[in-house]
Amino acid sequence: MKARLSIQEYATGITAGDRVILGKALSLVESNLPSDQQEAAQLIEKIKDKTGNSIRIGITGVPGVGKSTFIEVFGKFVTDQRKKIAVLTIDPSSQLTKGSILGDKTRMADLSKNPNAFIRPTASGNTLGGVASKTREAILLCEAAGYDVIIIETVGVGQSEVAVKNMVDFFLLLMLAGAGDELQGIKKGIMEMADAVLITKADGDNVKHATEAQAEYQHALHLVPSSGSNWKPKVLTCSSLTKKGIPEIWQMIEAYKNQTTQSGFLEENRRQQNASWLQEYFQQLLNNDFRRFADVQKELSDLEKQIVNKEISVHAAGGKLLSSYYKALKKHT
Amino acid sequence: MKARLSIQEYATGITAGDRVILGKALSLVESNLPSDQQEAAQLIEKIKDKTGNSIRIGITGVPGVGKSTFIEVFGKFVTDQRKKIAVLTIDPSSQLTKGSILGDKTRMADLSKNPNAFIRPTASGNTLGGVASKTREAILLCEAAGYDVIIIETVGVGQSEVAVKNMVDFFLLLMLAGAGDELQGIKKGIMEMADAVLITKADGDNVKHATEAQAEYQHALHLVPSSGSNWKPKVLTCSSLTKKGIPEIWQMIEAYKNQTTQSGFLEENRRQQNASWLQEYFQQLLNNDFRRFADVQKELSDLEKQIVNKEISVHAAGGKLLSSYYKALKKHT
Repeated sequence: MKARLSIQEYATGITAGDRVILGKALSLVESNLPSDQQEAAQLIEKIKDKTGNSIRIGITGVPGVGKSTFIEVFGKFVTDQRKKIAVLTIDPSSQLTKGSILGDKTRMADLSKNPNAFIRPTASGNTLGGVASKTREAILLCEAAGYDVIIIETVGVGQSEVAVKNMVDFFLLLMLAGAGDELQGIKKGIMEMADAVLITKADGDNVKHATEAQAEYQHALHLVPSSGSNWKPKVLTCSSLTKKGIPEIWQMIEAYKNQTTQSGFLEENRRQQNASWLQEYFQQLLNNDFRRFADVQKELSDLEKQIVNKEISVHAAGGKLLSSYYKALKKHT
Repeated sequence: MKARLSIQEYATGITAGDRVILGKALSLVESNLPSDQQEAAQLIEKIKDKTGNSIRIGITGVPGVGKSTFIEVFGKFVTDQRKKIAVLTIDPSSQLTKGSILGDKTRMADLSKNPNAFIRPTASGNTLGGVASKTREAILLCEAAGYDVIIIETVGVGQSEVAVKNMVDFFLLLMLAGAGDELQGIKKGIMEMADAVLITKADGDNVKHATEAQAEYQHALHLVPSSGSNWKPKVLTCSSLTKKGIPEIWQMIEAYKNQTTQSGFLEENRRQQNASWLQEYFQQLLNNDFRRFADVQKELSDLEKQIVNKEISVHAAGGKLLSSYYKALKKHT
């Protein structure tokens, strides 16, 4: 095995656009080992002047809406504009198999071979701390590596969308035409977060449905309160098959970036996002800090055995573990 | 405002089946205040001999599959069998409006009036610590209150399902017939967790599709490795409209409970679940412990302001906050 890279080697490799080193750096920030976390924090500090120059786009939608096909086609379009694109997928892993529900490696087959595209799945299932807690760091690393467009793709409805909304500039919701009332469930909450709704699969017999859905959602979005950006949410249609509508999406996102850059909202929003990141980051630190202490680690696994044997309750065990952590801190700091 | 209840008053009220006190106790366990958490832990200890007598059922499926309609009808059937049912919905709240995406209050209108049913939405969006971290405590409180059937309802695909699978006895996946390839995305990971797949809306013209889907999913489930329970996953169809198939679902769940009680798997599985709960619970304790210290709380909000003003990076601020927490611990413990 090769020796570990130094912080400087990571930083130099990343800013030179070295994809292998970028991949290693992403693994470093995803690690829960306290020593790795320290290095990751140093690395982020080191590259921070190279960050912030991308447009960060969150993309969501229910399974079957065509997210990966859209990202394939959209990514191709973006790279044809001489832009580099990074796709970070937040992947709800199966805890049983430790595998991926989505099978990212087989999705986006073309884009994954594109030299100006970088695709990275982030398994969210293994971290107790919630949805892809390291995605913010991943965005910064990709920016330092020169990617102009960063896509954060998430699946389904609910919590991960809220988390992603809070780390991107532009939030794009993909929806199917004709699903009608079936999808009403996600409309109220997720739609109010969207900067644009994109009706997918607008091709063939489906064009009419898509256009009707466009009118319907445009109407629904009128009811949604402004998010402070003064941006009026748009509803567009597109087809990943015929490529119709794809350039318009990119134009819309560029218009958003220009408008919010001029108004100062883009920068202000990112600062507010960083402030709320602090709480998350601090909790990550807390959640992993106890792993520094071998005796606390050992007590955790002993207590787990005692719980299985019904010798202690979870709450009593939790209290004991907290006391041990305090003691270890007193001894070692 | 009424004075706070004592632990004993909570415990007596809950075991007497007092719904108002149960509701207050659920609010207590959901609170992130360290003092409330301590009381909640004491309450759980106090009622623990009254817990464990329910069957804990996780129910999931994409929006539009008909989860709430099914739970309405299934809940009615269960209460007609002279059983009491509690429904805990894990609700991905909208961070922007602090409201509910699903509008639980208007869903399950009949069941919410049923004296033998208890419905409680749990907002997951506000807790940084992940998906409905207090649902396990809520299950125990409902058991102590005499509920025979506890439903944990969750929406969408991904992380919350993994968390729920890890706190229930029986995991039921609702699916639509005819959605076919569109839903393949969730099949691999979520289906392997399911003890049963239920094809909903098997009525009218849809009966044929539902029966075809049943055969298809039954075939797919053959590929899925056994989960250690020796239970062979079933595929059923039902209609919340005609009520066809509803009794069979209850019979299946009773058969599962009998089989796994006799084999010892039910008990063993719960013990293993408790062991993995310890890590989650310990992280909750850690994440909230710093709130005891006013000076650390104040520093957090000061650092947030400094981040907004770009005077400090998130990672540097996180490190500072951790040091302050250590200092506060040394001073106060």
